[in-house]
Amino acid sequence: MLQPKDVMIGIDLGGTSMRALVVDRRNKILALEKIPTNPTQRPERTVTDLAGMVDEVVKMAGLTRANVQGVSIGAPGAVDPRKGIVHHAPNLGWKEFALGQKLNARLNVPIFVENDVNVGVVGEHALGAARGTDDVVGIFVGTGIGGGIILAGELYEGLRGAAGELGHMILDINGPLCGCGRHGCAEALASRTAMERDVRGEIKKGGKSHVLKIMRERGKDRMTSSVILRALRKNDPVMKKVLARAQFYLALLVANVVNLLDPECIVIGGGVAERLGEEYVAPAREQAKAYFLDPRDADKIRVVPGILGDNAGALGAVVLGRKRLAIQHAPRHARKPKTGAA
Amino acid sequence: MLQPKDVMIGIDLGGTSMRALVVDRRNKILALEKIPTNPTQRPERTVTDLAGMVDEVVKMAGLTRANVQGVSIGAPGAVDPRKGIVHHAPNLGWKEFALGQKLNARLNVPIFVENDVNVGVVGEHALGAARGTDDVVGIFVGTGIGGGIILAGELYEGLRGAAGELGHMILDINGPLCGCGRHGCAEALASRTAMERDVRGEIKKGGKSHVLKIMRERGKDRMTSSVILRALRKNDPVMKKVLARAQFYLALLVANVVNLLDPECIVIGGGVAERLGEEYVAPAREQAKAYFLDPRDADKIRVVPGILGDNAGALGAVVLGRKRLAIQHAPRHARKPKTGAA
Repeated sequence: MLQPKDVMIGIDLGGTSMRALVVDRRNKILALEKIPTNPTQRPERTVTDLAGMVDEVVKMAGLTRANVQGVSIGAPGAVDPRKGIVHHAPNLGWKEFALGQKLNARLNVPIFVENDVNVGVVGEHALGAARGTDDVVGIFVGTGIGGGIILAGELYEGLRGAAGELGHMILDINGPLCGCGRHGCAEALASRTAMERDVRGEIKKGGKSHVLKIMRERGKDRMTSSVILRALRKNDPVMKKVLARAQFYLALLVANVVNLLDPECIVIGGGVAERLGEEYVAPAREQAKAYFLDPRDADKIRVVPGILGDNAGALGAVVLGRKRLAIQHAPRHARKPKTGAA
Repeated sequence: MLQPKDVMIGIDLGGTSMRALVVDRRNKILALEKIPTNPTQRPERTVTDLAGMVDEVVKMAGLTRANVQGVSIGAPGAVDPRKGIVHHAPNLGWKEFALGQKLNARLNVPIFVENDVNVGVVGEHALGAARGTDDVVGIFVGTGIGGGIILAGELYEGLRGAAGELGHMILDINGPLCGCGRHGCAEALASRTAMERDVRGEIKKGGKSHVLKIMRERGKDRMTSSVILRALRKNDPVMKKVLARAQFYLALLVANVVNLLDPECIVIGGGVAERLGEEYVAPAREQAKAYFLDPRDADKIRVVPGILGDNAGALGAVVLGRKRLAIQHAPRHARKPKTGAA
């Protein structure tokens, strides 16, 4: 039987949708709710949507707010976890928004805020593909490329909370323009956005491709991972060529991370990795090895696709929220996060 | 008065020379000895040289072997610190050489072996430019580019002991050939070897330069840091152009490290940084900031030249040796390294 305050709510707040999970102490998902995000509305309205979604999903689990230990949110962009502030989230149109404080005023439970990719990596580390490892780097490939770092089992945030921005490591200083305004970042070479740009470029140059037709049929204005999968299944030559190029740059990114950090595990997450799995990750893994400076035991470094899919972020938020709750409740002399202390 | 077994010997074993320091518990250098390395001789002969140098420098300090707690060596190349093995050191012509065991057989004191750049970073962290910080990345620019990482105050070695090879992070996949056989590594763009290649290239294209003359005058067949300094003082246009290019790539490397790790401090070490100091580091620091994805508090990340010069490695070896000795002597349940436990 559940004790009062025995569940944690994990939320993945994205630019197109937000997802909430009710998770018990054994990491079982008791209920799931997903609603669209409206980035054009004022942030306060989104806080109202979030509060309503929390109440709804708690009800779906047959519980009340009294059962809720806390709400832990993975939010896009630059986040200050200590203050619960979203500094800058272009996807949401937010700047310097005190998300933690505002949602706490509505729900009156502890609110934890962390970067969405960081919680995704925490999820894969605690409950997914990187389970049982100590030092993990997550590379999440979507419209952009984000990352997160776990060292000695704990999320590594860096001096300014800005660690893990590996999508903006430069791989080709003379390469294509990135969304960040610089040239040749990994994101400009290997993200889904980069692949779409390259597919359109190949088509313009006369390449034969089903991609645009598949997008029309599915009513998509962007080359989503499901469009990529469909095109590959149709043996689309342009899609295959463009994917191979993106995989090569993903391999370079993996190798740069390995040469610097020599981690136990690299988890490749995000929509493309989730849908294509090994078909996406295996060629990048093989090519990356050729760029490891130290070839000894190259296979000991596990390069694997994520397995938690769309739940990685919300589950990771739950895991992190529990740790932070344990720290808040710990006596002052024991404020170092410890697994299992929650 | 010194107690018996109260000093640690730190050795920096390089391809051209080896240097030994006798260091007391307050990190005071009591004696220093430097002799040439002969990479053409059998590794066992070099062990004899090392043992002789240790005895000599201990004598110079007015001590005997009974005063020596241990000998801690920074060795070039791929090293296994647990086994004291040098896997592969091209500078020395060594492969799978059990340096620790062999030197222990001669000296009968504990021997510690670590990568030379790692101990350099430990030195700058414990006693030099990065003192008082927790998360530090060292970038050592010489004929190659090596690195080392300190996280939460401790040397971070990685899964295979291969962490910190940031000289082989790729910055320009279409760039010049690197000594490692790949293209566009930081080492192929920003090392002293890369600068010499570019100076010779500019001269071939008709660039006016004093560099070759300075090398001849000084009897050098390579463009050492003292040659670089002399050429800059003569306002050599080719040298200035080539240095600026190398500084730009150093800036990219710094930015890649910051975007991934967001460390407190980046120490730029090695001969060029030592001789030119801020003249070398300041332009790279300024240009790097433009490549930080997160521009907030960019100045909080200290990017500084090393200050320990040629002693960084041997001093760092001493600091690390003391920690490892403390771990060996600690009860089994307390085998995590702790500062001050020595």
